[in-house]
Amino acid sequence: MSRGRDSLDGSVPLAARARAVQPFHVMRLLARAHELEAAGRSIIHLEVGEPDFATPEPILAAGQRALAAGLTHYTPAAGLAELRRAIAGHYGRRYGVDLGPEHILVAPGASGALQLVFSALLEPGDRVMIGDPSYPCYRQVLRLLGAEPLSVPVGADSDFQLTAERAERAWSPGVRALVVASPANPTGSVLDARALADLHALCRERGAALIVDEIYQGLVYRVPDVTALALGLDDLYVINSFSKYFGMTGWRLGWVAGSVESIQVMDRLSQNLFIAANTPAQHAALAAFEPETLAILESRRLAFETRRDFLLPALRELGFRIPNRPDGAFYLYAGLPERVREDSMAFVTRLLEEVGVAVTPGHDFGDHAAGRHLRFAYTRDLDPLAEAVERIASFMERL
Amino acid sequence: MSRGRDSLDGSVPLAARARAVQPFHVMRLLARAHELEAAGRSIIHLEVGEPDFATPEPILAAGQRALAAGLTHYTPAAGLAELRRAIAGHYGRRYGVDLGPEHILVAPGASGALQLVFSALLEPGDRVMIGDPSYPCYRQVLRLLGAEPLSVPVGADSDFQLTAERAERAWSPGVRALVVASPANPTGSVLDARALADLHALCRERGAALIVDEIYQGLVYRVPDVTALALGLDDLYVINSFSKYFGMTGWRLGWVAGSVESIQVMDRLSQNLFIAANTPAQHAALAAFEPETLAILESRRLAFETRRDFLLPALRELGFRIPNRPDGAFYLYAGLPERVREDSMAFVTRLLEEVGVAVTPGHDFGDHAAGRHLRFAYTRDLDPLAEAVERIASFMERL
Ligand SMILES: Cc1ncc(COP(=O)(O)O)c(C=O)c1O
Ligand SMILES: Cc1ncc(COP(=O)(O)O)c(C=O)c1O
Repeated sequence: MSRGRDSLDGSVPLAARARAVQPFHVMRLLARAHELEAAGRSIIHLEVGEPDFATPEPILAAGQRALAAGLTHYTPAAGLAELRRAIAGHYGRRYGVDLGPEHILVAPGASGALQLVFSALLEPGDRVMIGDPSYPCYRQVLRLLGAEPLSVPVGADSDFQLTAERAERAWSPGVRALVVASPANPTGSVLDARALADLHALCRERGAALIVDEIYQGLVYRVPDVTALALGLDDLYVINSFSKYFGMTGWRLGWVAGSVESIQVMDRLSQNLFIAANTPAQHAALAAFEPETLAILESRRLAFETRRDFLLPALRELGFRIPNRPDGAFYLYAGLPERVREDSMAFVTRLLEEVGVAVTPGHDFGDHAAGRHLRFAYTRDLDPLAEAVERIASFMERL
Repeated sequence: MSRGRDSLDGSVPLAARARAVQPFHVMRLLARAHELEAAGRSIIHLEVGEPDFATPEPILAAGQRALAAGLTHYTPAAGLAELRRAIAGHYGRRYGVDLGPEHILVAPGASGALQLVFSALLEPGDRVMIGDPSYPCYRQVLRLLGAEPLSVPVGADSDFQLTAERAERAWSPGVRALVVASPANPTGSVLDARALADLHALCRERGAALIVDEIYQGLVYRVPDVTALALGLDDLYVINSFSKYFGMTGWRLGWVAGSVESIQVMDRLSQNLFIAANTPAQHAALAAFEPETLAILESRRLAFETRRDFLLPALRELGFRIPNRPDGAFYLYAGLPERVREDSMAFVTRLLEEVGVAVTPGHDFGDHAAGRHLRFAYTRDLDPLAEAVERIASFMERL
């Protein structure tokens, strides 16, 4: 390919909806962080949205066994029957929810699961209510599918979550679904059973579906670990994944729970969009629910809790505003101290350049007060966290 | 979940475009085949669209090493830099095409790659020309994205391929892209360098993009192994995958080659739709281009060639119409013998029930003469193939 060819000799422009997908700011920061590291600088990464832990040993071992056995062909689009049963069984054992495997469809990550639910539910032009801030892919994928995200600003007063009351006020014609995450990214906030029930009741009353993203399920600290599935499956879709609690981000394995009819439709969508999820990953994930694995996961959960209990007061001490204690995931969504006048984007850039701490600006998660917020991910151990706090402190002193 | 809940208590209907995605007929056949097998019947599976071979040993070993090393975190959305380099290098070594890694984006299968290319290129309402018959997911995924497949009947006279001449005749306003596969599913037919160049010239003249699905690349028998990338990358997208030639179907790993600008846009789409492809699979695939692996793949290619050379004359002998020798993939697309009056759907159902041979009816690949065609996949070894031919012969005698 000659150099000239790389650029725009082509006559077919790319689609506007594709070009409208903006890069995440954190990607530019990450690239810069890697440059600084290559130049010998020490960088502490608090921008990373995945556990620092590798996948637990029993899952790795099961994956290796699957490979040794040559289990490398396509699986059914809805996933291995044993895995669907294992996931359904997990809801029974851990959450007391009685659910058959026909309600579970295995997907390539919660990412794939979200795409399936959105595709199954939405016609072009349908509106979907989401909180602002929230996980950025919701609105991007919705737009790619021709649906319209209806972003509703949510603040510390509602723990950065859509409440039934707030959703009701913001309701508008054409809203066909509402998406919440619990625990949430970027805020770590958790919806309790009551808040979920109220949202579900509102949705049912308005003829909309409730989509609950439970990808951080299990990563909760001193609050009840709940699932929206306790509410049944009428107009309710639950998204989940082996990525976070189970430490399997790179394996690309998640699932969706829904009514049998919706699972059948999503099965056919999946045949066309994905064929199926990764086969060795599915065999490996069978080991995710073994007692030995669950013990490892529990100790990791406690490690995250300890980190949160260290980082939260330390950041507050430095003037960051985190009014309510975030009870889940591995994120703290912090308001910039009053006296900081610059935008969060400028702030995180300087923080990285000057003291080598990488965090994510609020802009990646929406527009509402995004310039005043940062996301800290405690996906690093206590020592680097302590070092990060010292570096941030020295940076703040110089402001 | 109580039984009543499983059905349609919910008030939110699924989207029409999702419900319009029809199940593949082969899925019903497969389910029936499994039932028969469970009841003790012997079934020969010639409906399976993936190699019977497991993934080659060196790739399995590399995957196991990746797991042992805990390489289980997310990769960049465009794929591991080493893998992008290895794929680009493969084009240089094998096809004499000089291509940088910035032209390659790793995706979750050719499936993921197709979705990215379609999403990057198409606005709602755009038309995309495809041959009928062709791989069914093209038209389903296009419709999900709001684009309009323009199916052009192609027959044995053009080797079941869109030619420039035929495409020109069928051209209509709003055609923004044209999709061909070479070698093709379901026909095994191969486009030579000249045919590709003519299609590309036509597309460029008309301001459309050419999308070439090369997923069966390498699986060609006594004809040149070519790539459309020899034509450059102006308005050209090449889809490929580790699934077929490399024997990695269940790993869900493919790629797309395109202009740098398009790769950058698809990178951002991928961040949102997929996050990335499976990590252990990407590390494993680095071993796909090693001499040891390539030697295994070459011996498998020869095995497929031997099977084709057995099955093609045997089916012709039985009266199936396969005018031109299919030169690639592992499929024979056969016209029913004149004297068979029933539809291919009825024929394959009886073939399965009466003599335990499973093949795919033409209906899964389009509408054009679908009732008169079957797809035989030679993804079984010579012994079962010979047994299948005997069973089909005895079935035909009784017709
Ligand atoms: C809230 C939320 N949902 C979904 C995802 C997608 O994760 P995956 O596709 O790895 O399951 C993420 C990943 O960060 C997330 O934070
Ligand atoms: C022509 C063609 N393209 C694309 C695919 C998708 O394959 P994968 O997603 O496994 O790479 C297939 C699978 O059968 C195919 O036959």
